[in-house]
Amino acid sequence: MAELRNKQVILNNYVVGFPKESDMSIVEGTITLKVPEGSSDLLLKNLYLSCDPYMRFFMTKEDNPLGIGTYKLHSALRGDGVSQVVESGHPDYKKGDLVYARTRWEEYSLIPSSEICLKIEHTDLPLSYYIGVLGVSGLTAYAGFFEVGSPQKGDNVFVSAASGAIGQLVGQFAKLNGCYVVGSAGSKDKVDLLKNKLGFDEAFNYKEEPDLNAALKRYFPEGIDIYFENVGGKTLDAVLPNMRLHGRIVVCGMISQYNLTQPEGVTNLAHLIFKRVKMEGFLIIDFFHLFPKFLEFVVPLIREGKVVYVEDIVEGLENGPAALVGLFSGRNVGKQVVDVSRE
Amino acid sequence: MAELRNKQVILNNYVVGFPKESDMSIVEGTITLKVPEGSSDLLLKNLYLSCDPYMRFFMTKEDNPLGIGTYKLHSALRGDGVSQVVESGHPDYKKGDLVYARTRWEEYSLIPSSEICLKIEHTDLPLSYYIGVLGVSGLTAYAGFFEVGSPQKGDNVFVSAASGAIGQLVGQFAKLNGCYVVGSAGSKDKVDLLKNKLGFDEAFNYKEEPDLNAALKRYFPEGIDIYFENVGGKTLDAVLPNMRLHGRIVVCGMISQYNLTQPEGVTNLAHLIFKRVKMEGFLIIDFFHLFPKFLEFVVPLIREGKVVYVEDIVEGLENGPAALVGLFSGRNVGKQVVDVSRE
Repeated sequence: MAELRNKQVILNNYVVGFPKESDMSIVEGTITLKVPEGSSDLLLKNLYLSCDPYMRFFMTKEDNPLGIGTYKLHSALRGDGVSQVVESGHPDYKKGDLVYARTRWEEYSLIPSSEICLKIEHTDLPLSYYIGVLGVSGLTAYAGFFEVGSPQKGDNVFVSAASGAIGQLVGQFAKLNGCYVVGSAGSKDKVDLLKNKLGFDEAFNYKEEPDLNAALKRYFPEGIDIYFENVGGKTLDAVLPNMRLHGRIVVCGMISQYNLTQPEGVTNLAHLIFKRVKMEGFLIIDFFHLFPKFLEFVVPLIREGKVVYVEDIVEGLENGPAALVGLFSGRNVGKQVVDVSRE
Repeated sequence: MAELRNKQVILNNYVVGFPKESDMSIVEGTITLKVPEGSSDLLLKNLYLSCDPYMRFFMTKEDNPLGIGTYKLHSALRGDGVSQVVESGHPDYKKGDLVYARTRWEEYSLIPSSEICLKIEHTDLPLSYYIGVLGVSGLTAYAGFFEVGSPQKGDNVFVSAASGAIGQLVGQFAKLNGCYVVGSAGSKDKVDLLKNKLGFDEAFNYKEEPDLNAALKRYFPEGIDIYFENVGGKTLDAVLPNMRLHGRIVVCGMISQYNLTQPEGVTNLAHLIFKRVKMEGFLIIDFFHLFPKFLEFVVPLIREGKVVYVEDIVEGLENGPAALVGLFSGRNVGKQVVDVSRE
């Protein structure tokens, strides 16, 4: 029975504060290319892996706020990926099928078929898109903006981490919906991208704004109807007094807070009352039923060039740890992807 | 033309931090008991005045977060009251009518008819109830709990400032709706009231709980479905990690924060994501259309003794400033009312 090399990214230790590359190691194991007898598992060859901020939660030993356990030390990280079925124990999948799955940071993974998010059918689009615009990042932007945000034509929309995997799509969806859209990001290049490639009306570099409140007043003299929240902390505190009556804050993430032992305090929450604002957190697991509807919506837009998607692809599992860690310093420009099989 | 003494409570200066009795004065003016020729105003004799936390916002000179101006210095405070029409310039009202109105802290007030909230018709119930359970306090509890909170039978409900004007009703409405209800308050007497008179399942004195998070875990081992937020700050921060999946935080007030130059920072907002919580602020002005429906709901409950209402009534305008200031130290037990005309 064929035994193959199976390179993995494993977690060396639980993390406190900002994750470092040295919290992970690259190791070489082996794997038998065979699904165990009688099992309905799938053996996958991982092609692309997704770097997602939520992975940080699994690196904390205790008090995991999601209550969903942690990564096992010295085992391959878990994460989303685009993979090809090498051998299938499940009748719905066959060798050669492409899937978007909750897989592991390694070359080959044996996973239960229940971990498949989507069988990939539109193979004329880049495969990496299935962990981005055509995957959970896209669905998150779609469900968050349209279902949680309840946008109206003409709404003033602010997106933080706007050039990221999700933010760039929220801005484009908002523009398609007739909204005025401003994004914040952490470098001049990202700001240029937002304005020149992604069609945002305005964008600013939050690192160059000593007074975020004043910046928001400048871009939203009439206030913000929808704030798509990806960062939390100081940005949220500056947004609150700038919300418009009956505004919505869609809480997708708070990446600026995930590595802080003591999160920044948000002091302006009373504006939720004054402006009658709804602030709502969501997780994409509640919206998986929208996946088919979302793909019907977004695939034609991509084909027509009305939605574009910026990816930041690193080559090789070896570069995975740096890519993952880079999310928290904003190193990535667009969706951070690890290309596993092209190495 | 009759000129009468018109005692008033006026604001001496704008307030920074906690308001003090000395920020207000009692003065004696006079008033002509006549509506100006051609005006549609009403001349009211004020019977009961309502002490409300929101009044604090009008005492701040700058940066009034509601954007609705401030009290005029050396003029009578504005506030809600139950009044009797002495003379009417408007065809809908006649001498002797009882009204619930946005009036002033004085014996007699000349106000536009547009400031009437409600013409009082059920005069078999205590008149003071119309600034409490039958007025905006009651409607706030009703709209906040039922419209914003979307309660389900069996929900776990936590109410802060639970013996206050609004909290005591939220708890009773929740019990009538088949919920499990726990309230927090700031004294043993209030806790006894909640458990023995107002029908809360449990209640605790937050001043005697060094670890609010642990207290909430004790009373809500399965988490909180609805938090009716009256206080903000540390209490909110302790509630967030104790929310249940798809919980709702109804933000009615944040009284603990109104007098702080620098509000307390809330650090646990990322739990909005993990638990998919909706946190929504509201102001009662958006729900005035529910007033008739609310009265149909609550009046029979009061008559049958299924809803009770605890008031803290002080006699005489002279005692108004102390009563108003007392809201912020929790001096009042139940709805704080000033009886103006019985002095």
